[in-house]
Amino acid sequence: MNVAIIAAAGRGERAGGKRAKQFQELGGIPVIIHTLRRFEHSSTIGQTIVVLQADEVSSFLALAGRYGLAKLSRVVAGGETRTESIWRGLQAVRAATAGVVAVHDGVRPFVTVEEIDRVVRKAEETGAAILAARATDTIKEVASGCIERTLARESLWHAQTPQAFRYDLLRRAYERAREEACDATDDSALVEQLGVAVSVVEGSARNIKITRPEDFALAEILLKEMSDARC
Amino acid sequence: MNVAIIAAAGRGERAGGKRAKQFQELGGIPVIIHTLRRFEHSSTIGQTIVVLQADEVSSFLALAGRYGLAKLSRVVAGGETRTESIWRGLQAVRAATAGVVAVHDGVRPFVTVEEIDRVVRKAEETGAAILAARATDTIKEVASGCIERTLARESLWHAQTPQAFRYDLLRRAYERAREEACDATDDSALVEQLGVAVSVVEGSARNIKITRPEDFALAEILLKEMSDARC
Repeated sequence: MNVAIIAAAGRGERAGGKRAKQFQELGGIPVIIHTLRRFEHSSTIGQTIVVLQADEVSSFLALAGRYGLAKLSRVVAGGETRTESIWRGLQAVRAATAGVVAVHDGVRPFVTVEEIDRVVRKAEETGAAILAARATDTIKEVASGCIERTLARESLWHAQTPQAFRYDLLRRAYERAREEACDATDDSALVEQLGVAVSVVEGSARNIKITRPEDFALAEILLKEMSDARC
Repeated sequence: MNVAIIAAAGRGERAGGKRAKQFQELGGIPVIIHTLRRFEHSSTIGQTIVVLQADEVSSFLALAGRYGLAKLSRVVAGGETRTESIWRGLQAVRAATAGVVAVHDGVRPFVTVEEIDRVVRKAEETGAAILAARATDTIKEVASGCIERTLARESLWHAQTPQAFRYDLLRRAYERAREEACDATDDSALVEQLGVAVSVVEGSARNIKITRPEDFALAEILLKEMSDARC
């Protein structure tokens, strides 16, 4: 069975507000619930595992009960680092029956069901796939305050989530990251370090990560557009 | 004297709406007027030159009259390509008295006066400087649908405008671009190709380029925040 691990153990100081950003409301519904609903409607994901700060677990369970999330199978307390948090999420996956594991940011509520399914299917086929959007800006490599070079924009993509991997690959990548005490912000980089080819599935710039206070304003607009389109 | 060339000859099909995006209104004022006002308040820029589509020139002159832009010195009809348009703008600069030329996108109205002045002063000092914002996403180099490598995020910056250069450098860069029939979307890349070191001045992610319809919604939010801050 394919499983999604929803990473929501970040404190999110950058977004302002009293609560961690994954619990702030968008259109009256917490961001994390919007995100989980996308996975509820996915045809490729059978279960979701949510990783949270330890002190958020009980209030989240109450919240989840109210929204009736049929695929939610485990709520796990995260660790000190992102690597440790995802690792604990991985421990909650039943190894014997595990297929593809898709890791997704709890604060990316605008991923579409279709994007999730495309990434998971690609990972079923190739072992490893991530959602990404083409770069639209000119990107410069800078050192000591000067431009070293202008990168070829055509080949640059912004990594997003979900990032989906065969369970054994992701587990191996995390075992190695823990041995090397490396805190990854990007699961794909860990899998790439194993020498595994990671496929890229084209997503859209709408799949934003809600990080800063102004992202909430943009998120309200995207939410309105999506509900107008009844998506 | 330092001059700003405001590039506003793009048709902007991507932003939707009937008019080119630089003429659409934000808070009741055309985007290009917001942009020009920033340069009106700059202490480092003495004159502005606006490059427009030929058929927009007369209506722009009427508009500009209404807003009383003291530094607006020339309105120039652009060419078929961006390179040709900026080249025509450069022809309108008085070579004998030219200092630094700052090229700026007409559809970046949220640049601050302080950012403009920092870039221009840096270019006065080093010959070439651009405004840029640190990359916050993980950027992947992708070939044939697979990740080739994960770039070191710490060294990656998003190029913005203004991009400011000593007049002779920019002129030389454009002469070469025209000889090689190369259409640049980024002036700095042309100057880099001369072997000139280009300095980077740190800007902010708020200096957005209004390109797509959803950018206008974000722009309205940024405008409101800025007027709240009386900036």
